[in-house]
Amino acid sequence: MAGSPAGTSRLALNTATTKALTLEQALRVAADAGLTHVGLWRDRVEEVGLEAAVDLVRASGLAVSTLCRGGFLTAADPDGIAHALADNRKAIEQAAALGAPVLVLVVGGLPPGDTDLAAARGRVADRLADLVPVAREHGVQLALEPLHPMYVADRAVLSTLGQALDLAAPYAPSEVGVCVDTFHVFWDPQLPEQVARAGREQRVATYQVCDFNLPIAADALLSRGMMGDGVVDFAAVTRLVAATGYAGPVEVEIFNAEIWAAPAAQVVATMQERFAELVAPALEQPGSAAA
Amino acid sequence: MAGSPAGTSRLALNTATTKALTLEQALRVAADAGLTHVGLWRDRVEEVGLEAAVDLVRASGLAVSTLCRGGFLTAADPDGIAHALADNRKAIEQAAALGAPVLVLVVGGLPPGDTDLAAARGRVADRLADLVPVAREHGVQLALEPLHPMYVADRAVLSTLGQALDLAAPYAPSEVGVCVDTFHVFWDPQLPEQVARAGREQRVATYQVCDFNLPIAADALLSRGMMGDGVVDFAAVTRLVAATGYAGPVEVEIFNAEIWAAPAAQVVATMQERFAELVAPALEQPGSAAA
Repeated sequence: MAGSPAGTSRLALNTATTKALTLEQALRVAADAGLTHVGLWRDRVEEVGLEAAVDLVRASGLAVSTLCRGGFLTAADPDGIAHALADNRKAIEQAAALGAPVLVLVVGGLPPGDTDLAAARGRVADRLADLVPVAREHGVQLALEPLHPMYVADRAVLSTLGQALDLAAPYAPSEVGVCVDTFHVFWDPQLPEQVARAGREQRVATYQVCDFNLPIAADALLSRGMMGDGVVDFAAVTRLVAATGYAGPVEVEIFNAEIWAAPAAQVVATMQERFAELVAPALEQPGSAAA
Repeated sequence: MAGSPAGTSRLALNTATTKALTLEQALRVAADAGLTHVGLWRDRVEEVGLEAAVDLVRASGLAVSTLCRGGFLTAADPDGIAHALADNRKAIEQAAALGAPVLVLVVGGLPPGDTDLAAARGRVADRLADLVPVAREHGVQLALEPLHPMYVADRAVLSTLGQALDLAAPYAPSEVGVCVDTFHVFWDPQLPEQVARAGREQRVATYQVCDFNLPIAADALLSRGMMGDGVVDFAAVTRLVAATGYAGPVEVEIFNAEIWAAPAAQVVATMQERFAELVAPALEQPGSAAA
């Protein structure tokens, strides 16, 4: 354990950033870099099995900031709905077992051949109503993640923080919060007021950072970049989030073919440097400079 | 002149859809298909010169629905600002000469190396204030076009209809309106209220239709598709626009490498079929079925 470098005490590694690593390897890289939290994707958990994953996390000394991800709630057919509910119940149980306080939900896009966004959004609200009692029972907060509008049809019919907060409104903040991810929300002209609203409503469940690279990658899912490589104003977004009082871990979650191909320890070192330079100052946490 | 097929009386060809054609060829294809309006891109006008373009349009018997495009107003340096103003003054003069009632504005993205969206949006407002008197003098309405948020950094810091209407608010509707383009706005959860607001404020200057294709094209600019090939709900968006009372031409503007490579007459025929099937019924114009 090296201890966290100056300005990185709130930095967490999301395992999507080190996609080539097993859970065990990712935990080791994070611990060796002095991090205290990791965000886990379910693929890495499921490939070793939940029980082994819980043991690995415990042995690592790291805390789990979020489990990524549940969701895909837009099916209109009974089988699809049943499948979505079963999968999300499982994800909630996994989050509870791993000690992850938050399960991130990517709500899903349009069913094949369907173009009715309003109806799909309505089904997301229905499935959320089904899942909140399960999450409550397990002490896991569901975090609705608005995705960039370029994914509206294939990944998330939820595109803005305002929409996510409207969807969360019927529930207690401890039951349903929102995920603020710089890549997905930086463009939103209503960002200042909607982040402030999320703060007032105590719904900022997690803050994830990565850059928006240009040109958009040929596989549009992989346009996420290391902070500083793209067009996101991290100081501006981070100040908004800090002003809400959010004091939890800040995950770096990057889907990017070049970053996946690079040595993980080097990626994590770069992540720490860029975080300290671009994100940490705007978090304005006096304690964050202490290793 | 074939006369317009049933259900296509309000259909207009935007020359971006037939990018391989000269102005003269595009006008001929449109007239041969029985269309009454064309939307012109400035590249096709400038390659023959304004005077010749005016003559060609007059000879074609077609009316010009819009000139595309002015804008790119986000420069922060004096030279960039001067260049933008000169170019937009020229565009306004071209629109007036061509009899185009509307000049579409794509406002521009972030200057290189800059990430400050709020400041860039402020400069767009400043340049609009500079240009409105010129447009007024020439009797040309400026149409602010919100672009899909995936283009926020490189083409338009204006991403939503709500933002466009806020920016237009200081001016008379005859001076500044908005362009509603299905590709750019279909995802917006606030679309129903913002289109209705555009109607109340009498600012719908033009309605453009094309589909949003998935997967997003490797060159993200070229993901526009023929109606019916993607995920846009044309009935839903078109009903909103029709409810505003907008009664003008509906342009089809498609940037798509396959469509550009196909024979133009075939593209226009497909465009007419798809328009009649997917768009025209929702326009609910009883007269639109008459040739």
